[in-house]
Amino acid sequence: MTGHTSDQPGTDAGLLSPSWAAAGVHPLLSDEAWVAAMVEVEVALATVQARLGVVPPSAAEAIARTAAATSLDVTAIAHRATGAANPVVVLVQEFTRAVAQTDPSAAEYVHRGGTSQDILDSAAMLLAGRVLDRIDADLVRIAGSLAALAAGHRDTPMAGRTLTQHAAPVTFGLKAAGWLTLVLDAVDRVRRVRAGLPVQLGGAAGTLSAYQAYAGSAGGAGTSGAGHGMTLMAGLAGELGLAEPAAPWHTQRTPLADLGWVASVVTGALGKLAVDVLGMSRTEVGEVAEPTGEDRGVSSAMPQKRNPVLATVIVAAARQVPAYSLVLAQSMLAEDERAAGGWQSEWQPLREVLRLAAGAATAGVELAAGLSVFPQRMAANLNLTGGAIVSERLNVELAPLLGKAVAKKLLARISREAAATGKPFAELLAVAPELDGRFADARVADELLDPANYLGAADEIVARVLRRHQYTNAQGHEDR
Amino acid sequence: MTGHTSDQPGTDAGLLSPSWAAAGVHPLLSDEAWVAAMVEVEVALATVQARLGVVPPSAAEAIARTAAATSLDVTAIAHRATGAANPVVVLVQEFTRAVAQTDPSAAEYVHRGGTSQDILDSAAMLLAGRVLDRIDADLVRIAGSLAALAAGHRDTPMAGRTLTQHAAPVTFGLKAAGWLTLVLDAVDRVRRVRAGLPVQLGGAAGTLSAYQAYAGSAGGAGTSGAGHGMTLMAGLAGELGLAEPAAPWHTQRTPLADLGWVASVVTGALGKLAVDVLGMSRTEVGEVAEPTGEDRGVSSAMPQKRNPVLATVIVAAARQVPAYSLVLAQSMLAEDERAAGGWQSEWQPLREVLRLAAGAATAGVELAAGLSVFPQRMAANLNLTGGAIVSERLNVELAPLLGKAVAKKLLARISREAAATGKPFAELLAVAPELDGRFADARVADELLDPANYLGAADEIVARVLRRHQYTNAQGHEDR
Amino acid sequence: MTGHTSDQPGTDAGLLSPSWAAAGVHPLLSDEAWVAAMVEVEVALATVQARLGVVPPSAAEAIARTAAATSLDVTAIAHRATGAANPVVVLVQEFTRAVAQTDPSAAEYVHRGGTSQDILDSAAMLLAGRVLDRIDADLVRIAGSLAALAAGHRDTPMAGRTLTQHAAPVTFGLKAAGWLTLVLDAVDRVRRVRAGLPVQLGGAAGTLSAYQAYAGSAGGAGTSGAGHGMTLMAGLAGELGLAEPAAPWHTQRTPLADLGWVASVVTGALGKLAVDVLGMSRTEVGEVAEPTGEDRGVSSAMPQKRNPVLATVIVAAARQVPAYSLVLAQSMLAEDERAAGGWQSEWQPLREVLRLAAGAATAGVELAAGLSVFPQRMAANLNLTGGAIVSERLNVELAPLLGKAVAKKLLARISREAAATGKPFAELLAVAPELDGRFADARVADELLDPANYLGAADEIVARVLRRHQYTNAQGHEDR
Amino acid sequence: MTGHTSDQPGTDAGLLSPSWAAAGVHPLLSDEAWVAAMVEVEVALATVQARLGVVPPSAAEAIARTAAATSLDVTAIAHRATGAANPVVVLVQEFTRAVAQTDPSAAEYVHRGGTSQDILDSAAMLLAGRVLDRIDADLVRIAGSLAALAAGHRDTPMAGRTLTQHAAPVTFGLKAAGWLTLVLDAVDRVRRVRAGLPVQLGGAAGTLSAYQAYAGSAGGAGTSGAGHGMTLMAGLAGELGLAEPAAPWHTQRTPLADLGWVASVVTGALGKLAVDVLGMSRTEVGEVAEPTGEDRGVSSAMPQKRNPVLATVIVAAARQVPAYSLVLAQSMLAEDERAAGGWQSEWQPLREVLRLAAGAATAGVELAAGLSVFPQRMAANLNLTGGAIVSERLNVELAPLLGKAVAKKLLARISREAAATGKPFAELLAVAPELDGRFADARVADELLDPANYLGAADEIVARVLRRHQYTNAQGHEDR
Repeated sequence: MTGHTSDQPGTDAGLLSPSWAAAGVHPLLSDEAWVAAMVEVEVALATVQARLGVVPPSAAEAIARTAAATSLDVTAIAHRATGAANPVVVLVQEFTRAVAQTDPSAAEYVHRGGTSQDILDSAAMLLAGRVLDRIDADLVRIAGSLAALAAGHRDTPMAGRTLTQHAAPVTFGLKAAGWLTLVLDAVDRVRRVRAGLPVQLGGAAGTLSAYQAYAGSAGGAGTSGAGHGMTLMAGLAGELGLAEPAAPWHTQRTPLADLGWVASVVTGALGKLAVDVLGMSRTEVGEVAEPTGEDRGVSSAMPQKRNPVLATVIVAAARQVPAYSLVLAQSMLAEDERAAGGWQSEWQPLREVLRLAAGAATAGVELAAGLSVFPQRMAANLNLTGGAIVSERLNVELAPLLGKAVAKKLLARISREAAATGKPFAELLAVAPELDGRFADARVADELLDPANYLGAADEIVARVLRRHQYTNAQGHEDR
Repeated sequence: MTGHTSDQPGTDAGLLSPSWAAAGVHPLLSDEAWVAAMVEVEVALATVQARLGVVPPSAAEAIARTAAATSLDVTAIAHRATGAANPVVVLVQEFTRAVAQTDPSAAEYVHRGGTSQDILDSAAMLLAGRVLDRIDADLVRIAGSLAALAAGHRDTPMAGRTLTQHAAPVTFGLKAAGWLTLVLDAVDRVRRVRAGLPVQLGGAAGTLSAYQAYAGSAGGAGTSGAGHGMTLMAGLAGELGLAEPAAPWHTQRTPLADLGWVASVVTGALGKLAVDVLGMSRTEVGEVAEPTGEDRGVSSAMPQKRNPVLATVIVAAARQVPAYSLVLAQSMLAEDERAAGGWQSEWQPLREVLRLAAGAATAGVELAAGLSVFPQRMAANLNLTGGAIVSERLNVELAPLLGKAVAKKLLARISREAAATGKPFAELLAVAPELDGRFADARVADELLDPANYLGAADEIVARVLRRHQYTNAQGHEDR
Repeated sequence: MTGHTSDQPGTDAGLLSPSWAAAGVHPLLSDEAWVAAMVEVEVALATVQARLGVVPPSAAEAIARTAAATSLDVTAIAHRATGAANPVVVLVQEFTRAVAQTDPSAAEYVHRGGTSQDILDSAAMLLAGRVLDRIDADLVRIAGSLAALAAGHRDTPMAGRTLTQHAAPVTFGLKAAGWLTLVLDAVDRVRRVRAGLPVQLGGAAGTLSAYQAYAGSAGGAGTSGAGHGMTLMAGLAGELGLAEPAAPWHTQRTPLADLGWVASVVTGALGKLAVDVLGMSRTEVGEVAEPTGEDRGVSSAMPQKRNPVLATVIVAAARQVPAYSLVLAQSMLAEDERAAGGWQSEWQPLREVLRLAAGAATAGVELAAGLSVFPQRMAANLNLTGGAIVSERLNVELAPLLGKAVAKKLLARISREAAATGKPFAELLAVAPELDGRFADARVADELLDPANYLGAADEIVARVLRRHQYTNAQGHEDR
Repeated sequence: MTGHTSDQPGTDAGLLSPSWAAAGVHPLLSDEAWVAAMVEVEVALATVQARLGVVPPSAAEAIARTAAATSLDVTAIAHRATGAANPVVVLVQEFTRAVAQTDPSAAEYVHRGGTSQDILDSAAMLLAGRVLDRIDADLVRIAGSLAALAAGHRDTPMAGRTLTQHAAPVTFGLKAAGWLTLVLDAVDRVRRVRAGLPVQLGGAAGTLSAYQAYAGSAGGAGTSGAGHGMTLMAGLAGELGLAEPAAPWHTQRTPLADLGWVASVVTGALGKLAVDVLGMSRTEVGEVAEPTGEDRGVSSAMPQKRNPVLATVIVAAARQVPAYSLVLAQSMLAEDERAAGGWQSEWQPLREVLRLAAGAATAGVELAAGLSVFPQRMAANLNLTGGAIVSERLNVELAPLLGKAVAKKLLARISREAAATGKPFAELLAVAPELDGRFADARVADELLDPANYLGAADEIVARVLRRHQYTNAQGHEDR
């Protein structure tokens, strides 16, 4: 392999991922963060082993002290990691060296009984848990903003659109309630997955054999170490704030599939909000606008532009995450007791889905809190079709009078004529021969054609979604 | 478009999908099944509307009677469906025509207030629920077989393998417990998603407006229909055995993302079993064999072959499902009140993930129940490396004596020498100068090198997984 | 497995795939079509073997005659195919039985030396080639329509939009030229891949051994059959109109990866056209409309609607194809001489990408040929921002006068003021203190602000794309 | 957004991607490399504009000088990039500031007429081109090694395996020729795509308007700038060593789809080699071994292990790349003149596919060059089934004597008996009553059962693939 030294720069601060670069997310999952998390697992392991009498307390303390004081060269570790196809082997070497400098007698006790996968998987769950907590908090904030929009715009009519065309009236409150629904769906799933994130402890082939052998030899002649493995696993789970699984899961990768799914739901939920913001802020539509700010939405060429960049970076995340999640789902196809290629293909996609989801959530907080809403533009757009948007209602009125088929044909004809001539729907209804003058009185037609009179259960639906929001909030507080 | 008549054959009976062709799955999700499910939703809608006084009881009965008696031409419907980019418009036309033949006055009441998406989405959930129930039952059967293997082989040692190489001893019971863990993970997720599958009812733009308008007009002058929509939704959910959502979800597609995920977990869980069966049944390994049967595993060219076809079709499913699930996850990016292209892209991937998961589960039942296990081959393979497979244990023993680094080097050297010369590990240990004759007594080395003495917590882990299995079973019985 | 009889219906006529249901595509790739193609390969094999003296001419003729006269039960074959995890074993049994009825002595010669994969892979390439030819022809038609639009609208200004906002003026001719570019890209790739689609002939493990052994034994004592395999492969390629590869490719799956890619490019190219049509036909934008037709774009609930269904089904295809292509790309990871699970996972995704691409192309023909264009709406939209759309041009003019930074700030301020107050840009420019009255004369500002005066190289680009179109057309004619 | 300062570390040196961490690939595509490439495009733009008289030569020189001397803070740029959802706006600000320090009068000329996408897309193509060149060179090296293996092992028989079971004999030369075929396929595609990588130049909305406006104003009163845009595009293409497209391609993203495809083919091709190496180096198979080296294949727990880490990291890459490529293929669905979310979702997947492909290629060089081959183990494995592996040949011999069906049944029976009893095939043949003692003479059976006598066209196929290799090599030299 080509000569490579650790001093060549290898930054990934999100230059190519504006979805998370500004969101403070990048330090959470950088190579430095992963190295720190792996060291944290080594410290926790030694700490619990000390508690269980397998490692001398002084050694565990020296290990913890070293972790707090030492900074390892992540680029060098990354580079040399390829020798074992994972970074743990080299990390353990480097960390052991550092511990030896603190306390030579402690060095023997680093990574005692450990296998690479225990360290890396547990570190991954640790980081995932923290990022999910952050996402949860951001989603709760977003939900709060959306609930306020839903409540505040229960009476703001706007055009409902299906397959890009005006279909029937809705309210902006209902639209916001739809966004809120998805955010609540995401919160539910984030919390469920977060609560189940398991510690990994299994040793070389998933039997915890070396951990138990060390415990046996520490216990003196005749001690088999039986039972120690499970106690150690439980202790480590507690120390790291992770769940205790029934069994080691080196090649039972459901937690990875779950994490990919939950990240997809987060970015999918916010992505729906974002595509609607993009559609509604088109120059011709103008019903909402993103919050503005210093340097926000600037174009390099066009001074007049205010680009909807928050929605853009959310959509960019939502287009990527399901693809990376697929790699995580496929990692379930893991042969033997450690997969060759499967395991190693998880790490980068896991990082990507977590940081894209976290970035999208942070952008979502700003977007939801600062969204400008323009009810007048909504009203103006609603009237663009001169009444055709409530033709469904007319259909309900006319079908009993004329029969379903005749009513539908009549309304289709009037819609086309209104579109072609620009004449108001009410006027065309008034003179339609099939109707025998039933709508000759303009007030009758006006009442029928007013979109605000044809909002169905929009208000009740908003109320139900707001109740669900309160319930989710209450649950969140209980958990704390 | 080119002339196309409905009499051209368009079968998909699984010719290209042996994963489900033989599993009895194909009729569950064929075009015929979808048409039937959509008609079922129309009948349920009319039934509940009759109960609520919006449709005359006689009309609802005529609609139900017609559904039971009529067979629609699915190919013709499919062909004409492209006019609306969904099959419901034509299906409603055809079904209305059939109802009119039964009872002309009932025809007006078909699809009253309905929108295409209400019918199609509810039908999709109906089918998904039934397929998930079938998958659940199959997974329970598989779990039973695997639990028996785990319990029966708690004391059957075999080689644990990591990155394709012998690593440390495990038991076949532990391996089966690992497969069981994944199946239980899948059962948990199948049940959770199945319980939440929601009915869809929203009308043209998600406000339930037309349903309420009809209720209002049925109720006589002055009745607004307020509250009717939600009551109708609840009634329809009950009638179809689906959950009642807080709100219509035309462009809140979490249920689709969930279904894709759960199908991925099912095929991923079974896929792990399958890749292990493939690896363990390689000619050179020979530790397990698939059940044989009439025509099972036949090659067209090679008379001697017994191909592991059940594992093959499971892996084939597991390689496809996550990709189709991705399309479902991306369907969350649904603009407006009905997505143009997003919604329509869900149907076929949904069908594929469901039938591949169901097919994989059915193949899994046969595979798990009939798997032949060859403990002697396991034992023979375990001895292939002449003791190197327990070198981790030797490391634990020697590290305190020699120091970690020296012990590791010594063992690596002996491993290489054993591999190169074929000499037994015990013999090389006996003469290693670093060890000062500590292992000169062959019995000491033999005891240390016996894989059966180095199984760690394998047995405890099996016991824990079997307890989890009992718990899942108990839950399943409770639910019924 | 559950009892399953072949008389249960298992139609897939595209009910869930309006992208291709109406396009006449469904019979091209149905189970019936695959069975027919596999029989066609068997006939071609016997025919060439007869030519080479390995099969008696009368037997080859009986085989061909049987193929023409017999219709096999595809559902029964599909069902029983799971025994071997591929449909060929059963198909050969059934076809052999049919041949025996025609001519008992010919039955021995069916599938002589053959292996399942030779038949299935060659049949897949045969079908893929035919579908690509159809797609090519459709793309050429689409290109013709788009070229006409590009040429006809070279002088039709419209708003160029970036990140959903008006950015700078373009022409509709340029937009059509962009669509045309993608279609020409797709044609190039379709033709390249189509020309290279290889016949498959390798026998059980890719050595052509049985074919040669039969040739040897047919040639009498002492004949080894050496050289026969390659001659047979070349002959079969010629007979089927496929390319002759350097080697059998049982686990060298580049052709599958290529097919997935080319289908993605086809649906991606048409998908760009479709998303633009969807955006431009939004009720508020109204710059284009899809062709109308009997039942086209009908809504089940809303009589007034004309949905852009052609664009919708194209987008639905384009959202699916890359996911299925991924499965094909991953099929390159094929272990040994035939992959367990990898090979079997290719067939259904291959069918899907081909029929979705073919369906999208057929819909594209209708869409491109019948697209209505509304230059007046384009002009009206172009003026919505009162001049801001050419602020880039003003920037070029003002930067040299005021400095880049000052000019940009001034224009941003005026843009905001114009948007907020509705005052025309020209007026605000006239009174801007920074400009010292340079634009006080309205005619100067009007000339500068006219979008039609700021179209850059749009016309030249259109001309270049049209020349590329002519070149592609000429190539197409040459090839025939 | 949360406070974030540029001094927080954000390294991605491949800690989670051993596929490329050691391959020297990380500096090629780090944030630093992207910033450098974007600056390179800005310099090239100014240089060509100076050549065409639009920028003063002294300014272009100052810009070039600054680029060579200045190092921008990539983390700060990444962080602030989110304001515009792309890094170019901030990069231009920072670079302009740096130029102003070199030569205040030159600062006005930085990014003259430019738009963000022109810079970023051209930089992406520049980097992609360089990485593809590196991959090409590595693939050529791999091809050389594989050709040597194919030629050197033309006469080394081994078991051909289908669906994990011994099927028929092949040679290791044929296996290597299969690997070589895929590498040559990859080389073809890499070269084709590399040659077509286009420069991007289009300006704000793809009309090149600002470039032409500056040219017009530079040319003095009355100069329109007509024709300048295309000349500038051609010049920039030449300056950067990229192809000149017919038109700007801001939302015509075929080049991205092509790059994803070619990366998938590269990792797929090497992935096949890798999965075979993994399978063949299983402890029980032992037919090949990876090259060893300092720290190569080390386990953290098990001193005896030599893990096949090169194959592992290649498979890890091959499992990821098609998923990222999918995002690139979907980027073709790009609305308007610049896509909101689509464009921004391309950058990170593009980086990933390129560096994973480059890493896999570098690992492949080492793997192919250093692969150990063990013909004796191949021979031993070939004999494991006691002759069943040539039962296809026996079938060819016996079918004419006994009829196809009887022969197949006889051989299946003998295979089962040989497997069950361990008796040699020859012996069972000798006593089979159906054969009337035809094979009583052991020499007849031995000749028939010798795998080396049943290799079909293996040797000819190897020769054909080697000729293809020479042709590809010759082409490569021509191109230089």
